[in-house]
Amino acid sequence: MNTQLRGVSLPARVAASTEEVGFDELALAARNHGMPLEALRYDLTPPGLHYTLIHYDIPQPDIRNWRLSVTGRVKEPATFSLDELRTMPSRTVRVTMECAGNGRALLRPRPVSQPWLVEAVGTAEWTGVPLRAVLAECGIGHDVIEAVFTGADHGVERGVEQDYRRGLALDEARREEVLLAYQMNGAPLPPQHGYPLRLIVPGWYGMAQVKWLREIELVNSPFTGFQNTVAYRARRRPDEPGEPVTRIAVRALINPPGMPDFMSRTRIVRPGPLRLAGRAWSGRAPVTRVDVSTDGCRTWAEADLDIATGHVWAWREWIFDWEATPGDHVLAARATDADGNTQPVHQAWNRGGFANNLVHRVHVACLP
Amino acid sequence: MNTQLRGVSLPARVAASTEEVGFDELALAARNHGMPLEALRYDLTPPGLHYTLIHYDIPQPDIRNWRLSVTGRVKEPATFSLDELRTMPSRTVRVTMECAGNGRALLRPRPVSQPWLVEAVGTAEWTGVPLRAVLAECGIGHDVIEAVFTGADHGVERGVEQDYRRGLALDEARREEVLLAYQMNGAPLPPQHGYPLRLIVPGWYGMAQVKWLREIELVNSPFTGFQNTVAYRARRRPDEPGEPVTRIAVRALINPPGMPDFMSRTRIVRPGPLRLAGRAWSGRAPVTRVDVSTDGCRTWAEADLDIATGHVWAWREWIFDWEATPGDHVLAARATDADGNTQPVHQAWNRGGFANNLVHRVHVACLP
Repeated sequence: MNTQLRGVSLPARVAASTEEVGFDELALAARNHGMPLEALRYDLTPPGLHYTLIHYDIPQPDIRNWRLSVTGRVKEPATFSLDELRTMPSRTVRVTMECAGNGRALLRPRPVSQPWLVEAVGTAEWTGVPLRAVLAECGIGHDVIEAVFTGADHGVERGVEQDYRRGLALDEARREEVLLAYQMNGAPLPPQHGYPLRLIVPGWYGMAQVKWLREIELVNSPFTGFQNTVAYRARRRPDEPGEPVTRIAVRALINPPGMPDFMSRTRIVRPGPLRLAGRAWSGRAPVTRVDVSTDGCRTWAEADLDIATGHVWAWREWIFDWEATPGDHVLAARATDADGNTQPVHQAWNRGGFANNLVHRVHVACLP
Repeated sequence: MNTQLRGVSLPARVAASTEEVGFDELALAARNHGMPLEALRYDLTPPGLHYTLIHYDIPQPDIRNWRLSVTGRVKEPATFSLDELRTMPSRTVRVTMECAGNGRALLRPRPVSQPWLVEAVGTAEWTGVPLRAVLAECGIGHDVIEAVFTGADHGVERGVEQDYRRGLALDEARREEVLLAYQMNGAPLPPQHGYPLRLIVPGWYGMAQVKWLREIELVNSPFTGFQNTVAYRARRRPDEPGEPVTRIAVRALINPPGMPDFMSRTRIVRPGPLRLAGRAWSGRAPVTRVDVSTDGCRTWAEADLDIATGHVWAWREWIFDWEATPGDHVLAARATDADGNTQPVHQAWNRGGFANNLVHRVHVACLP
């Protein structure tokens, strides 16, 4: 650690049990934003509603001189202009992306970081060049085990000055649906989503989807940089190495019914039949089932899933018909995927608040 | 007040002196978002970076059956389809828009509402039909004093179920630059910015710019609805009527220099010459001067304003050259407009946290 940075860049910590949200957390919440849950109505999230999490500042690329560099253990190191990438065969993939810290601020005790409730998600169609095509053009060295992706965003985190940088195993990097994306929903990437180029790794949490990509280095030893070995590890104690955060855990969200109270965001409905709806996804296997509870997780009933759309990396819609009766209710939804993964009703916990897929609960007041 | 709503919809309040940010405030911060301050670099804020404040839910219009109704004291009540509005002569206006609650969470004591720091701003080009043309087509009754604008967003606020609705004096409504806007930066309005139609009242805080507009009613008595007489009033005591919140108070923001620490958002720079930059605006008169302090508001020096662009409702850029020296610094910027309005160095306070234009301070750590 740079000792001069210690005073302004503190170690990770967990909030005390009585501690409400701090101004450091609020400063992150004011910049980054989730997807308002009523946007669960859209198959594709409009770009300004898709969640964003920016570690440092949004970079300002000099687009005329911009190049992607491919370096390290390649047969022919190369650079690519945006036009060169655009002339290569492209592919479009619909992807549900979620922040690894989604749900963090609901944990007890609360890990202190970006204070997500449950909105850190969005679905978009990303268009770009398959990464494997670019790597094949450069020639992958025989001993390569990982690709290291460097973004242009630059800042300090826990005392370490850095460009945002992540390593990814070569087997993952060579999956056919992994893209170097230059379009989001058919338009150039917005600044906050990585303009001009970002990595898309369908099924993984957002930390893998390196934005403002400027370099890919192929390496023959495991990458030990900050974002892989310090951040984005599930740890229960600060001194253990922890497990790497990788693919998105199965989750369902409820499009909140009725209308909100402005301040409490409590949902208010009137008695009678009500169609509940939402979306469910998993980065590990297709979602095969969603169950809904209207009595605070005491009993569950199966929801109807929409027909599979063929977009295997995107969320599925579900619906559930409910008869609202006067009084207070707690709705909940719980998804299960084809590998048998399902969501916990009681929180699992780690110090970073990562991959927390606790069932989504929505408090509803039904008027008389 | 609907007594059945009392339990879920509480009166306005001010936080206790020791009270950190609550989960109700955080729920608003996770949905709504400010403009990351590095976006002060753009003349026009990309839509997904422009601030948004949505009182209830983003409505989902049935666009085929959508109509704008003009009712009340008009000679001929009328409805307009979106196509009909699009065929009328249009006008484009560049507007800096700011939330009336910008800066609220920095006040002591803190009004409990959307907990903005300073990012609740953005600048866009809005295209639409001048409101006066639509009103002229319907014929304004001789005794009309206000126009009342109703949006499609529906919810509960302090116990009152309502559509979002605001009254505006006829003199303001007939200003030539007041628009019924259907485009933002040349594209259809994004859902969160009022699709398909919103009111644009250049110079006023965001609460006047009614989104998802569905009805305009001309009236011959002052509108006494919730958003004009209960909310959006500057009060020091809860029982006084207070002053209506109207035009945007003069303000400058600083594009934070150097790089951030992820968690504290403290800015870190290296010693040497540094060009500071930012934007300044006022809804009352053109900005004529920006002063910068690099010693925590003890001394001030005048910044360079860019040449006036002719966009009189939009912000102006300013620059200021600074020599950073090792140690901690507090930068500040203070704008003044042609009417002699300037920003306070010490907070003015009201219970809603409205129109708070305290000077913007940025803490900078300069490395050795």
